[in-house]
Amino acid sequence: MIIYGDLISGNCLKVKYTADFLGLAYAWHDVDVVKGEARKPEFLTLNPMGQVPAVVLDDGRVLAQSNAIIRYLARDSKLLPADAYLQAKVDELLFWEQYSHEPYIAVNRFHLKYLGKSKDQLEQWRVDRGNAALALMEKLLSGREWFVGQRMTIADIALFGYTQFANEGGFDLSPHRNISAWVKRCQAALNLKAIAA
Amino acid sequence: MIIYGDLISGNCLKVKYTADFLGLAYAWHDVDVVKGEARKPEFLTLNPMGQVPAVVLDDGRVLAQSNAIIRYLARDSKLLPADAYLQAKVDELLFWEQYSHEPYIAVNRFHLKYLGKSKDQLEQWRVDRGNAALALMEKLLSGREWFVGQRMTIADIALFGYTQFANEGGFDLSPHRNISAWVKRCQAALNLKAIAA
Repeated sequence: MIIYGDLISGNCLKVKYTADFLGLAYAWHDVDVVKGEARKPEFLTLNPMGQVPAVVLDDGRVLAQSNAIIRYLARDSKLLPADAYLQAKVDELLFWEQYSHEPYIAVNRFHLKYLGKSKDQLEQWRVDRGNAALALMEKLLSGREWFVGQRMTIADIALFGYTQFANEGGFDLSPHRNISAWVKRCQAALNLKAIAA
Repeated sequence: MIIYGDLISGNCLKVKYTADFLGLAYAWHDVDVVKGEARKPEFLTLNPMGQVPAVVLDDGRVLAQSNAIIRYLARDSKLLPADAYLQAKVDELLFWEQYSHEPYIAVNRFHLKYLGKSKDQLEQWRVDRGNAALALMEKLLSGREWFVGQRMTIADIALFGYTQFANEGGFDLSPHRNISAWVKRCQAALNLKAIAA
Protein backbone atom coordinates (compact mmCIF):
# COMPACT_ATOMS: atom_id res chain seq x y z
CA MET A 1 0.00 0.00 0.00
CA ILE A 2 1.13 3.53 -0.70
CA ILE A 3 -0.15 6.33 1.54
CA TYR A 4 -0.11 9.78 -0.05
CA GLY A 5 -0.11 12.34 2.73
CA ASP A 6 1.44 15.21 4.63
CA LEU A 7 2.61 14.63 8.19
CA ILE A 8 1.38 18.07 9.27
CA SER A 9 -2.19 16.91 8.56
CA GLY A 10 -4.17 15.20 11.30
CA ASN A 11 -6.30 13.60 8.59
CA CYS A 12 -3.19 11.96 7.14
CA LEU A 13 -1.85 10.99 10.55
CA LYS A 14 -5.09 9.09 11.22
CA VAL A 15 -4.19 6.76 8.36
CA LYS A 16 -0.59 6.39 9.52
CA TYR A 17 -1.66 5.66 13.10
CA THR A 18 -4.19 3.06 11.97
CA ALA A 19 -1.76 1.32 9.63
CA ASP A 20 1.00 1.35 12.25
CA PHE A 21 -1.30 0.04 15.00
CA LEU A 22 -2.48 -2.80 12.78
CA GLY A 23 1.05 -3.56 11.57
CA LEU A 24 0.15 -2.97 7.91
CA ALA A 25 3.04 -2.53 5.46
CA TYR A 26 3.06 0.71 3.48
CA ALA A 27 5.23 3.23 1.69
CA TRP A 28 4.66 6.89 2.56
CA HIS A 29 4.59 9.38 -0.30
CA ASP A 30 4.80 13.01 0.79
CA VAL A 31 2.33 15.50 -0.69
CA ASP A 32 2.98 19.06 0.48
CA VAL A 33 -0.38 20.60 1.36
CA VAL A 34 0.94 24.09 1.99
CA LYS A 35 2.51 24.14 -1.48
CA GLY A 36 -0.83 23.03 -2.93
CA GLU A 37 0.49 19.74 -4.27
CA ALA A 38 -2.86 18.00 -3.65
CA ARG A 39 -4.46 20.33 -6.21
CA LYS A 40 -1.93 19.76 -8.97
CA PRO A 41 -2.92 17.81 -12.11
CA GLU A 42 -0.71 14.79 -11.39
CA PHE A 43 -2.32 14.32 -7.98
CA LEU A 44 -5.83 15.01 -9.27
CA THR A 45 -5.38 12.04 -11.63
CA LEU A 46 -4.94 9.90 -8.53
CA ASN A 47 -7.63 11.57 -6.41
CA PRO A 48 -9.98 13.94 -8.25
CA MET A 49 -11.19 15.24 -4.86
CA GLY A 50 -7.82 17.01 -4.60
CA GLN A 51 -7.28 16.13 -0.96
CA VAL A 52 -4.90 14.05 1.12
CA PRO A 53 -4.77 11.42 2.42
CA ALA A 54 -5.30 8.99 -0.42
CA VAL A 55 -4.05 5.43 -0.59
CA VAL A 56 -3.19 3.11 -3.44
CA LEU A 57 -3.95 -0.42 -2.31
CA ASP A 58 -1.76 -3.37 -3.27
CA ASP A 59 -4.08 -4.20 -6.18
CA GLY A 60 -3.69 -0.65 -7.53
CA ARG A 61 -7.13 0.59 -6.54
CA VAL A 62 -7.38 4.05 -4.98
CA LEU A 63 -9.27 5.15 -1.88
CA ALA A 64 -9.59 8.69 -0.51
CA GLN A 65 -11.13 10.45 2.52
CA SER A 66 -9.33 9.81 5.80
CA ASN A 67 -12.27 8.29 7.65
CA ALA A 68 -13.24 6.05 4.72
CA ILE A 69 -9.65 4.83 4.55
CA ILE A 70 -9.28 4.03 8.24
CA ARG A 71 -12.68 2.34 8.30
CA TYR A 72 -11.55 0.15 5.38
CA LEU A 73 -8.15 -0.65 6.91
CA ALA A 74 -9.72 -1.41 10.30
CA ARG A 75 -12.46 -3.75 9.02
CA ASP A 76 -12.44 -7.10 10.83
CA SER A 77 -9.86 -5.76 13.32
CA LYS A 78 -10.09 -4.81 16.98
CA LEU A 79 -10.22 -1.13 15.95
CA LEU A 80 -13.81 -1.59 14.69
CA PRO A 81 -16.41 -3.39 16.80
CA ALA A 82 -18.08 -6.39 15.14
CA ASP A 83 -21.57 -5.39 16.32
CA ALA A 84 -23.52 -3.45 13.66
CA TYR A 85 -24.93 -0.88 16.08
CA LEU A 86 -21.53 -0.18 17.65
CA GLN A 87 -20.10 0.19 14.14
CA ALA A 88 -22.82 2.74 13.45
CA LYS A 89 -21.91 4.62 16.65
CA VAL A 90 -18.32 4.71 15.39
CA ASP A 91 -19.62 6.04 12.06
CA GLU A 92 -21.69 8.66 13.90
CA LEU A 93 -18.51 10.06 15.45
CA LEU A 94 -16.54 9.83 12.20
CA PHE A 95 -19.15 11.95 10.42
CA TRP A 96 -19.44 14.33 13.35
CA GLU A 97 -15.66 14.76 13.36
CA GLN A 98 -15.59 15.78 9.71
CA TYR A 99 -18.58 18.13 9.95
CA SER A 100 -18.47 19.63 13.44
CA HIS A 101 -14.86 19.30 14.63
CA GLU A 102 -12.28 19.31 11.82
CA PRO A 103 -13.59 22.48 10.05
CA TYR A 104 -12.89 24.46 13.24
CA ILE A 105 -10.15 22.70 15.22
CA ALA A 106 -8.03 21.84 12.17
CA VAL A 107 -8.79 24.92 10.07
CA ASN A 108 -7.90 27.37 12.83
CA ARG A 109 -4.63 25.51 13.41
CA PHE A 110 -3.88 25.73 9.70
CA HIS A 111 -4.60 29.46 9.70
CA LEU A 112 -2.41 30.14 12.74
CA LYS A 113 0.47 27.74 12.20
CA TYR A 114 0.74 27.40 8.42
CA LEU A 115 -0.83 30.56 6.99
CA GLY A 116 0.78 32.77 9.64
CA LYS A 117 -2.39 34.49 10.80
CA SER A 118 -2.68 35.95 14.29
CA LYS A 119 -5.38 34.91 16.75
CA ASP A 120 -7.14 38.23 16.11
CA GLN A 121 -7.56 37.23 12.47
CA LEU A 122 -9.42 34.01 13.25
CA GLU A 123 -13.13 34.08 12.54
CA GLN A 124 -15.07 34.07 15.80
CA TRP A 125 -17.72 31.61 14.55
CA ARG A 126 -14.98 29.03 13.94
CA VAL A 127 -13.58 29.61 17.43
CA ASP A 128 -17.04 29.22 18.96
CA ARG A 129 -17.84 26.06 17.05
CA GLY A 130 -14.45 24.54 17.88
CA ASN A 131 -15.06 25.21 21.55
CA ALA A 132 -18.52 23.66 21.24
CA ALA A 133 -16.96 20.56 19.67
CA LEU A 134 -14.48 20.22 22.53
CA ALA A 135 -17.25 20.74 25.10
CA LEU A 136 -19.25 17.92 23.54
CA MET A 137 -16.21 15.60 23.47
CA GLU A 138 -15.59 16.37 27.13
CA LYS A 139 -19.20 15.45 27.92
CA LEU A 140 -19.19 12.27 25.84
CA LEU A 141 -16.00 11.09 27.55
CA SER A 142 -17.50 11.49 31.02
CA GLY A 143 -16.98 8.18 32.83
CA ARG A 144 -15.55 6.56 29.70
CA GLU A 145 -12.06 5.64 28.57
CA TRP A 146 -12.91 5.47 24.86
CA PHE A 147 -15.70 6.93 22.72
CA VAL A 148 -17.34 3.62 21.71
CA GLY A 149 -17.18 0.36 23.65
CA GLN A 150 -14.40 -0.66 26.02
CA ARG A 151 -11.32 -0.24 23.81
CA MET A 152 -9.78 2.19 21.35
CA THR A 153 -11.56 2.28 17.99
CA ILE A 154 -11.10 4.29 14.82
CA ALA A 155 -13.53 6.82 16.35
CA ASP A 156 -10.83 7.63 18.89
CA ILE A 157 -8.11 7.73 16.23
CA ALA A 158 -10.20 10.04 14.03
CA LEU A 159 -10.90 12.46 16.88
CA PHE A 160 -7.35 12.26 18.22
CA GLY A 161 -5.95 13.25 14.81
CA TYR A 162 -6.55 16.97 15.29
CA THR A 163 -7.55 17.16 18.97
CA GLN A 164 -3.92 16.45 19.90
CA PHE A 165 -3.00 19.71 18.12
CA ALA A 166 -5.96 21.78 19.37
CA ASN A 167 -3.64 24.12 21.29
CA GLU A 168 -1.92 25.02 18.02
CA GLY A 169 -5.32 26.25 16.77
CA GLY A 170 -5.75 28.53 19.75
CA PHE A 171 -7.97 26.15 21.71
CA ASP A 172 -7.25 25.45 25.35
CA LEU A 173 -7.53 21.79 26.31
CA SER A 174 -6.48 22.30 29.93
CA PRO A 175 -10.02 22.88 31.32
CA HIS A 176 -11.13 19.66 29.61
CA ARG A 177 -9.88 17.00 31.99
CA ASN A 178 -11.57 14.07 30.27
CA ILE A 179 -10.14 15.04 26.89
CA SER A 180 -6.67 15.64 28.33
CA ALA A 181 -6.63 12.19 29.96
CA TRP A 182 -7.98 10.57 26.77
CA VAL A 183 -5.29 12.28 24.64
CA LYS A 184 -2.64 10.68 26.87
CA ARG A 185 -4.46 7.35 26.63
CA CYS A 186 -4.43 7.59 22.82
CA GLN A 187 -0.75 8.53 22.77
CA ALA A 188 0.08 5.50 24.91
CA ALA A 189 -2.09 3.10 22.89
CA LEU A 190 -0.59 4.39 19.63
CA ASN A 191 2.91 4.35 21.10
CA LEU A 192 3.43 8.07 20.43
CA LYS A 193 5.47 10.50 22.41
CA ALA A 194 3.55 13.38 23.92
CA ILE A 195 3.47 16.51 21.80
CA ALA A 196 4.90 19.56 23.53
CA ALA A 197 1.91 21.81 24.12
CA MET B 1 -38.22 3.11 14.66
CA ILE B 2 -38.84 6.80 15.22
CA ILE B 3 -37.17 9.29 12.89
CA TYR B 4 -36.68 12.76 14.35
CA GLY B 5 -36.31 15.19 11.49
CA ASP B 6 -37.42 18.19 9.50
CA LEU B 7 -38.70 17.67 5.96
CA ILE B 8 -36.97 20.86 4.76
CA SER B 9 -33.59 19.19 5.53
CA GLY B 10 -31.90 17.11 2.84
CA ASN B 11 -30.02 15.31 5.62
CA CYS B 12 -33.34 14.20 7.12
CA LEU B 13 -34.82 13.33 3.73
CA LYS B 14 -31.90 10.94 3.12
CA VAL B 15 -33.13 8.88 6.08
CA LYS B 16 -36.75 9.02 4.92
CA TYR B 17 -35.80 8.00 1.36
CA THR B 18 -33.66 5.09 2.60
CA ALA B 19 -36.33 3.82 4.98
CA ASP B 20 -39.07 4.17 2.35
CA PHE B 21 -36.98 2.44 -0.33
CA LEU B 22 -36.24 -0.48 1.98
CA GLY B 23 -39.84 -0.65 3.21
CA LEU B 24 -38.87 -0.08 6.85
CA ALA B 25 -41.64 0.87 9.27
CA TYR B 26 -41.19 4.13 11.14
CA ALA B 27 -42.94 7.01 12.85
CA TRP B 28 -41.84 10.51 11.84
CA HIS B 29 -41.39 13.06 14.61
CA ASP B 30 -41.08 16.66 13.38
CA VAL B 31 -38.26 18.80 14.80
CA ASP B 32 -38.39 22.38 13.51
CA VAL B 33 -34.84 23.35 12.58
CA VAL B 34 -35.62 26.99 11.82
CA LYS B 35 -37.16 27.38 15.29
CA GLY B 36 -34.00 25.83 16.78
CA GLU B 37 -35.80 22.83 18.24
CA ALA B 38 -32.74 20.60 17.68
CA ARG B 39 -30.82 22.75 20.16
CA LYS B 40 -33.41 22.64 22.93
CA PRO B 41 -32.68 20.71 26.15
CA GLU B 42 -35.30 18.01 25.53
CA PHE B 43 -33.81 17.19 22.15
CA LEU B 44 -30.22 17.39 23.41
CA THR B 45 -31.11 14.63 25.87
CA LEU B 46 -31.86 12.46 22.85
CA ASN B 47 -28.97 13.64 20.67
CA PRO B 48 -26.28 15.69 22.42
CA MET B 49 -24.92 16.67 19.00
CA GLY B 50 -27.99 18.92 18.67
CA GLN B 51 -28.67 18.00 15.06
CA VAL B 52 -31.34 16.23 13.06
CA PRO B 53 -31.85 13.60 11.85
CA ALA B 54 -31.67 11.22 14.77
CA VAL B 55 -33.43 7.90 15.07
CA VAL B 56 -34.62 5.82 17.98
CA LEU B 57 -34.40 2.17 16.99
CA ASP B 58 -37.01 -0.38 18.05
CA ASP B 59 -34.84 -1.44 20.99
CA GLY B 60 -34.68 2.18 22.21
CA ARG B 61 -31.09 2.85 21.18
CA VAL B 62 -30.35 6.18 19.49
CA LEU B 63 -28.32 6.88 16.37
CA ALA B 64 -27.48 10.29 14.88
CA GLN B 65 -25.70 11.69 11.79
CA SER B 66 -27.59 11.21 8.53
CA ASN B 67 -24.91 9.20 6.76
CA ALA B 68 -24.26 6.96 9.75
CA ILE B 69 -28.00 6.31 9.97
CA ILE B 70 -28.50 5.43 6.31
CA ARG B 71 -25.39 3.24 6.33
CA TYR B 72 -26.82 1.36 9.30
CA LEU B 73 -30.30 1.02 7.80
CA ALA B 74 -28.85 -0.08 4.45
CA ARG B 75 -26.50 -2.76 5.82
CA ASP B 76 -27.02 -6.12 4.11
CA SER B 77 -29.38 -4.52 1.56
CA LYS B 78 -29.01 -3.73 -2.13
CA LEU B 79 -28.36 -0.09 -1.23
CA LEU B 80 -24.87 -1.01 0.06
CA PRO B 81 -22.55 -3.26 -1.98
CA ALA B 82 -21.35 -6.42 -0.21
CA ASP B 83 -17.75 -5.98 -1.41
CA ALA B 84 -15.54 -4.26 1.18
CA TYR B 85 -13.76 -2.02 -1.33
CA LEU B 86 -17.03 -0.87 -2.92
CA GLN B 87 -18.39 -0.17 0.56
CA ALA B 88 -15.30 1.96 1.16
CA LYS B 89 -15.94 3.84 -2.09
CA VAL B 90 -19.47 4.51 -0.84
CA ASP B 91 -17.99 5.75 2.45
CA GLU B 92 -15.56 7.96 0.52
CA LEU B 93 -18.49 9.76 -1.09
CA LEU B 94 -20.46 9.94 2.17
CA PHE B 95 -17.57 11.71 3.88
CA TRP B 96 -16.94 13.93 0.85
CA GLU B 97 -20.62 14.90 0.84
CA GLN B 98 -20.52 16.06 4.44
CA TYR B 99 -17.22 17.93 4.12
CA SER B 100 -17.12 19.31 0.58
CA HIS B 101 -20.74 19.48 -0.60
CA GLU B 102 -23.27 19.96 2.20
CA PRO B 103 -21.52 22.96 3.85
CA TYR B 104 -21.93 24.91 0.60
CA ILE B 105 -24.91 23.50 -1.32
CA ALA B 106 -27.10 23.08 1.76
CA VAL B 107 -25.91 26.07 3.75
CA ASN B 108 -26.44 28.55 0.90
CA ARG B 109 -29.93 27.16 0.38
CA PHE B 110 -30.62 27.63 4.08
CA HIS B 111 -29.38 31.21 3.95
CA LEU B 112 -31.45 32.10 0.87
CA LYS B 113 -34.65 30.17 1.49
CA TYR B 114 -34.96 30.01 5.27
CA LEU B 115 -32.95 32.95 6.60
CA GLY B 116 -34.22 35.29 3.86
CA LYS B 117 -30.83 36.47 2.64
CA SER B 118 -30.33 37.75 -0.89
CA LYS B 119 -27.83 36.23 -3.31
CA ASP B 120 -25.59 39.29 -2.78
CA GLN B 121 -25.31 38.37 0.89
CA LEU B 122 -23.95 34.88 0.24
CA GLU B 123 -20.25 34.41 0.95
CA GLN B 124 -18.36 34.00 -2.30
CA TRP B 125 -16.10 31.22 -0.97
CA ARG B 126 -19.17 29.10 -0.26
CA VAL B 127 -20.49 29.77 -3.77
CA ASP B 128 -17.13 28.81 -5.29
CA ARG B 129 -16.80 25.63 -3.26
CA GLY B 130 -20.37 24.62 -4.03
CA ASN B 131 -19.69 25.06 -7.72
CA ALA B 132 -16.48 23.02 -7.35
CA ALA B 133 -18.48 20.24 -5.69
CA LEU B 134 -21.00 20.18 -8.53
CA ALA B 135 -18.19 20.18 -11.11
CA LEU B 136 -16.63 17.14 -9.46
CA MET B 137 -19.96 15.32 -9.30
CA GLU B 138 -20.48 16.04 -13.00
CA LYS B 139 -17.06 14.56 -13.75
CA LEU B 140 -17.52 11.49 -11.55
CA LEU B 141 -20.87 10.74 -13.23
CA SER B 142 -19.34 10.80 -16.70
CA GLY B 143 -20.32 7.54 -18.39
CA ARG B 144 -21.97 6.26 -15.23
CA GLU B 145 -25.57 5.89 -14.07
CA TRP B 146 -24.73 5.73 -10.35
CA PHE B 147 -21.77 6.84 -8.26
CA VAL B 148 -20.61 3.37 -7.13
CA GLY B 149 -21.25 0.09 -8.96
CA GLN B 150 -24.18 -0.58 -11.27
CA ARG B 151 -27.14 0.37 -9.11
CA MET B 152 -28.31 3.08 -6.74
CA THR B 153 -26.54 3.03 -3.37
CA ILE B 154 -26.69 5.19 -0.28
CA ALA B 155 -23.91 7.27 -1.88
CA ASP B 156 -26.47 8.39 -4.46
CA ILE B 157 -29.13 8.98 -1.81
CA ALA B 158 -26.71 11.03 0.31
CA LEU B 159 -25.67 13.23 -2.61
CA PHE B 160 -29.21 13.50 -3.96
CA GLY B 161 -30.44 14.82 -0.58
CA TYR B 162 -29.30 18.38 -1.20
CA THR B 163 -28.29 18.29 -4.87
CA GLN B 164 -31.99 18.10 -5.78
CA PHE B 165 -32.42 21.52 -4.14
CA ALA B 166 -29.19 23.08 -5.45
CA ASN B 167 -31.14 25.66 -7.44
CA GLU B 168 -32.69 26.92 -4.22
CA GLY B 169 -29.15 27.69 -3.00
CA GLY B 170 -28.41 29.78 -6.07
CA PHE B 171 -26.56 27.01 -7.94
CA ASP B 172 -27.38 26.31 -11.55
CA LEU B 173 -27.65 22.61 -12.38
CA SER B 174 -28.61 23.15 -16.03
CA PRO B 175 -25.02 23.14 -17.40
CA HIS B 176 -24.40 19.85 -15.60
CA ARG B 177 -26.05 17.33 -17.87
CA ASN B 178 -24.80 14.25 -16.05
CA ILE B 179 -26.07 15.54 -12.71
CA SER B 180 -29.40 16.59 -14.19
CA ALA B 181 -29.96 13.13 -15.69
CA TRP B 182 -28.86 11.45 -12.46
CA VAL B 183 -31.26 13.61 -10.39
CA LYS B 184 -34.13 12.34 -12.56
CA ARG B 185 -32.81 8.78 -12.21
CA CYS B 186 -32.80 9.14 -8.41
CA GLN B 187 -36.30 10.64 -8.40
CA ALA B 188 -37.57 7.68 -10.44
CA ALA B 189 -35.77 5.07 -8.33
CA LEU B 190 -37.04 6.68 -5.12
CA ASN B 191 -40.53 7.10 -6.60
CA LEU B 192 -40.51 10.87 -6.04
CA LYS B 193 -42.19 13.51 -8.10
CA ALA B 194 -39.86 16.02 -9.71
CA ILE B 195 -39.32 19.17 -7.69
CA ALA B 196 -40.28 22.34 -9.50
CA ALA B 197 -36.98 24.09 -10.19
